[in-house]
Amino acid sequence: MFTRLSILGTGLLGTSAGLAMRAAGFTGHITGWSRTKEQAHIALKTGAIDHVAADPIQAARESEIVLLTMPIFATLDYMAQLSGNLTPDHLVTDVGSTKRMIAESAAQLYNKPNSPAFLPGHPMAGKERSGAALGDANLYRGAVWLFTDDPAARRSPRAAELVVDWRSMVAAMGSRVIDLDAARHDELVAWVSHLPQFVATAMSALLEDEVGNAPELKDVGGRALREMTRLGASPYSMWRDIAHTNTEAVERALQAMEQRLTHLRENLRTPGLRAEFDQANHFRRE
Amino acid sequence: MFTRLSILGTGLLGTSAGLAMRAAGFTGHITGWSRTKEQAHIALKTGAIDHVAADPIQAARESEIVLLTMPIFATLDYMAQLSGNLTPDHLVTDVGSTKRMIAESAAQLYNKPNSPAFLPGHPMAGKERSGAALGDANLYRGAVWLFTDDPAARRSPRAAELVVDWRSMVAAMGSRVIDLDAARHDELVAWVSHLPQFVATAMSALLEDEVGNAPELKDVGGRALREMTRLGASPYSMWRDIAHTNTEAVERALQAMEQRLTHLRENLRTPGLRAEFDQANHFRRE
Repeated sequence: MFTRLSILGTGLLGTSAGLAMRAAGFTGHITGWSRTKEQAHIALKTGAIDHVAADPIQAARESEIVLLTMPIFATLDYMAQLSGNLTPDHLVTDVGSTKRMIAESAAQLYNKPNSPAFLPGHPMAGKERSGAALGDANLYRGAVWLFTDDPAARRSPRAAELVVDWRSMVAAMGSRVIDLDAARHDELVAWVSHLPQFVATAMSALLEDEVGNAPELKDVGGRALREMTRLGASPYSMWRDIAHTNTEAVERALQAMEQRLTHLRENLRTPGLRAEFDQANHFRRE
Repeated sequence: MFTRLSILGTGLLGTSAGLAMRAAGFTGHITGWSRTKEQAHIALKTGAIDHVAADPIQAARESEIVLLTMPIFATLDYMAQLSGNLTPDHLVTDVGSTKRMIAESAAQLYNKPNSPAFLPGHPMAGKERSGAALGDANLYRGAVWLFTDDPAARRSPRAAELVVDWRSMVAAMGSRVIDLDAARHDELVAWVSHLPQFVATAMSALLEDEVGNAPELKDVGGRALREMTRLGASPYSMWRDIAHTNTEAVERALQAMEQRLTHLRENLRTPGLRAEFDQANHFRRE
């Protein structure tokens, strides 16, 4: 098992990973770094990391596994910066929400003789608010952790071991590992993750226009409204990168949703409404 | 305080009302009836009612307050049947999700000299699945209970007392009472209740088409997907009546939602996306 990890980007996901690894019994050294220094110091205080690094490149060099926990474009930037600074015995892995562009960058810059190793990952976990202070040792418990590894990746024997170790660590944090290819990943998450988010954002924005000036009227909606708009609090900074790196799949999902709503609206008083409820009930069957 | 209540329609809402009244210390007699006999016997077993009535009209005659807990068209049917069978000292109240048609029926058949009294009510509480077996003494705790009473209603002194008693009982069950007029009620719930439901139904039905044949892929969506589709399990039988009695307001809300999604889709790569996230964040500010 590896003994030296660095977490670059100690926000919600990074801090939670450190805490979950500690809870799973990891006794190695964890170095953390964040573009916002305060976030790294909060992560230190929670016990998620042992040490705040001054320089992310130096921290990565001194680790066996580098976990990138930042938005997608920042992940792509650091992938490029790190690739020239690490050895074939280093493993870099990430938590980015879209994988096609990250897998492309990995194929170009990593996983070749003389290149460091890269394993693209995506835990389906998060909260609608961000930051190290919300770090949670149980965030990954019961979640699915997707990997979109390239079967043709060529890695050093040591890096291959580190891939096995990291997958074990993910399981020890309580996640269920599913492997799929990067294109299929981006297609799938457009439906089961990005569509729900953008629908919640659009509905929250619409309701802010309609009832936002009367806070007591929001209470009228009760639990159903709270649940259906909880994701309305999600940060633009993260979702911008998703919208930019999975645009076509998200467009298809949104357009299908618009058409489905139109169909339902045109059938409020016809048997077509029953068919939609039956189909929806089927999705939620237990 | 009244001592004799009948609950006509001992499903989720009716059974929960009986349980909540008991929990609040009500010691009077509660008679229950359901079109489906089994539901009344389940309600009896849970302790929500003291007695299963054979005949709803007879049960109503022998009560001081009659609580109608059925879908809207059934409520309208029983309002008509009961109005000729009760005295001006009887109070009938309901829990229907739209109020314009019920208020119109109340104005026609109730609340006049020599007519029984009617108080239109709507607790903003429920579950995505129905039935007496899910009855819950805490269902109404923390919920808003809307009344759309007619200020011009003319009631017997005894019926006026019963209105005050029922409002106190609702507060004792843990709900917060808000009064508004029936037309404004239907407009408001189209936004904060019916829109979230129909969006969840449409999204669940769409996802059943897209990923329904691969159950493991639903797990990928995690908590966000579960929350955004929970209402997909809601029964057609209840929502058909809502769609039929609040059609225009629901059509307006759905059309606005379709337009909002189109706008978001067309702005996935423009600063317009930030504006939508900002507006949505504002709705969820704490």
